[in-house]
Amino acid sequence: MAVPTPAGTPPAAEAMFDFVFAEVWQRPGLSRRDRWFVALPCVAAADAEQPLREHVRAALVGGDLTIEEMHEAVLHFAVYSGWPKASLFSMIVDEQWDRIHQERGEPVPPATPLLPLTTPSDPEARLLVGEQAFRDVNCVPYIPVRDNPYSGAGILNFVFGEMWLRPGLGMKERRLITVACVAFQDAPYPILSHVYAALKSRDLSFDEMDEVALHFGAYYGWPKASRLMQVIGEQKQRVTQEWAAEG
Amino acid sequence: MAVPTPAGTPPAAEAMFDFVFAEVWQRPGLSRRDRWFVALPCVAAADAEQPLREHVRAALVGGDLTIEEMHEAVLHFAVYSGWPKASLFSMIVDEQWDRIHQERGEPVPPATPLLPLTTPSDPEARLLVGEQAFRDVNCVPYIPVRDNPYSGAGILNFVFGEMWLRPGLGMKERRLITVACVAFQDAPYPILSHVYAALKSRDLSFDEMDEVALHFGAYYGWPKASRLMQVIGEQKQRVTQEWAAEG
Amino acid sequence: MAVPTPAGTPPAAEAMFDFVFAEVWQRPGLSRRDRWFVALPCVAAADAEQPLREHVRAALVGGDLTIEEMHEAVLHFAVYSGWPKASLFSMIVDEQWDRIHQERGEPVPPATPLLPLTTPSDPEARLLVGEQAFRDVNCVPYIPVRDNPYSGAGILNFVFGEMWLRPGLGMKERRLITVACVAFQDAPYPILSHVYAALKSRDLSFDEMDEVALHFGAYYGWPKASRLMQVIGEQKQRVTQEWAAEG
Repeated sequence: MAVPTPAGTPPAAEAMFDFVFAEVWQRPGLSRRDRWFVALPCVAAADAEQPLREHVRAALVGGDLTIEEMHEAVLHFAVYSGWPKASLFSMIVDEQWDRIHQERGEPVPPATPLLPLTTPSDPEARLLVGEQAFRDVNCVPYIPVRDNPYSGAGILNFVFGEMWLRPGLGMKERRLITVACVAFQDAPYPILSHVYAALKSRDLSFDEMDEVALHFGAYYGWPKASRLMQVIGEQKQRVTQEWAAEG
Repeated sequence: MAVPTPAGTPPAAEAMFDFVFAEVWQRPGLSRRDRWFVALPCVAAADAEQPLREHVRAALVGGDLTIEEMHEAVLHFAVYSGWPKASLFSMIVDEQWDRIHQERGEPVPPATPLLPLTTPSDPEARLLVGEQAFRDVNCVPYIPVRDNPYSGAGILNFVFGEMWLRPGLGMKERRLITVACVAFQDAPYPILSHVYAALKSRDLSFDEMDEVALHFGAYYGWPKASRLMQVIGEQKQRVTQEWAAEG
Repeated sequence: MAVPTPAGTPPAAEAMFDFVFAEVWQRPGLSRRDRWFVALPCVAAADAEQPLREHVRAALVGGDLTIEEMHEAVLHFAVYSGWPKASLFSMIVDEQWDRIHQERGEPVPPATPLLPLTTPSDPEARLLVGEQAFRDVNCVPYIPVRDNPYSGAGILNFVFGEMWLRPGLGMKERRLITVACVAFQDAPYPILSHVYAALKSRDLSFDEMDEVALHFGAYYGWPKASRLMQVIGEQKQRVTQEWAAEG
């Protein structure tokens, strides 16, 4: 990882940075690219401006993420942690992207245009697409009710009817960001459903998920990671039983 | 809503701002004024400085909130989200209020004096008033123990013995701020009691509460909103049964 | 520290628990008792129910904290992290205190009575006391305005006019809880003033403060700890210069 120990780190804290950067990032079991999709949401959620700047820069300079993936990650993060939190993340991405090009003496390439969207505009068609995506992403047979502002106008219409279906970021990457966000947000149920679905879909292997918990803990503290680990243990069992039942 | 899409918003994020500002704020079911009391705590909690500045300014310039209401909202927010979070909110309110008057070439009017307080000063009398307010606000027959610093010196003596009883902000507005705060704080029990009491007191209708959940989700992310939704569903049922039993 | 590694901890996570419990807690530079006043607020803030239960129990059983200190810590935490977060902490303290006595076959001793308060009841006198405590605690010559609900009714009247002046918890312990809370709350300014005042007052030595940053990082994640360390570095310099100027 190209992120240096912060200047002026007292000796007392070197133990911590050694642990995070010399031990955790170097571990096998989860690729360096995948680790960014856990680390970036954690640093953004912590409102840690300087570390966020260094992480965004390192991920882009090292070529682990393209700018399109980074932008898409900001959007996904905003939906799962709230857009006010995402506003700093978004600003820092632009700032670092400009700075990287300035240092190289190159112009910043034009951004990918938003339109046309790849999802339908007709409200009924969008809800249908959202319902199917809800089932697919969450690996469940049911769908939430339409006639409720939160689940209709919010979840079906926008979160699953548009956001999860956007090109520019793979399913595994969206899973990693989502698991990190539900782990620091610590609402009691979304953590269950998203860990379950990430495992059930085989987008993340059991071993990768264990590494996600450690990487998350290194970034967001072990008390929240300890809840995530508990959930992972339970959902592994549930998924294993379902796979056995399905033959 | 007069809050513009942040400068330099990447195309990926425009979809979200369209959703939040063009769709969510325009929905019927919750007044624009009421929506501020959900949005402002969410933006303040996220430590999102620039969005907070724009939101405070828009709420004051548009005349949806008076400066007294805004100041009182900062105090209520401080109690429910922690004093440190509220300090930036407080500073930005003062800064924007000054700026608005400067732009108009008008002097800033003098602040409403703090004293006299409208609640009793004698400690025993304050506790009695706090106990009654605790029952009234929470719609419960019991009261917490006095001989415990958290529930006695804190909850009865200050939170209910003084803060909730201050003039300058209506009960509905205090309910909205509180529900937003317990939803992002995601401690397991306060969300139950405050959603219950907001519905039971009829300060918020069932339909308004559904809109609160959507508005909250648009500002603070889906995982926490989904917990809020679940709690709303359960508490609606409880309140409906209680109303039926009460004839 | 008597807190065991959670059951079912995957091998991937053992590295983390080793780091926290075998390395950080055992370090010199900050006493075990002092470390609780950093760890407890962090675990409570993370809504980590099982770790919170184990921490509260271990601190009480080991005799590092009295029950009065623990109760007072809950109130101080409530003020700095928001009341909803503190409700679970408060419940768990009572639950574990009951359980400890049940296991010993001893009755729970009666709680310390709340009244009489040691701070004045008259609003004007309370504000005067609050203003003096504000100066003393924050090591600053100025005071905030009274005629503002947040700074008058809240900060001067309650936070400094009552809460900080309560007996039952020493100044050093209140400093430790406050620094932990402003570090996880990550509002931009309170972290500056509270780290400054803890050092300037000599309630915490420079070396102890470095250990606080590490202990905090082990519990709440290094991105927030890295901001704390940066602030500590700056405030050490400021305090050193002031001491030199003061002769």
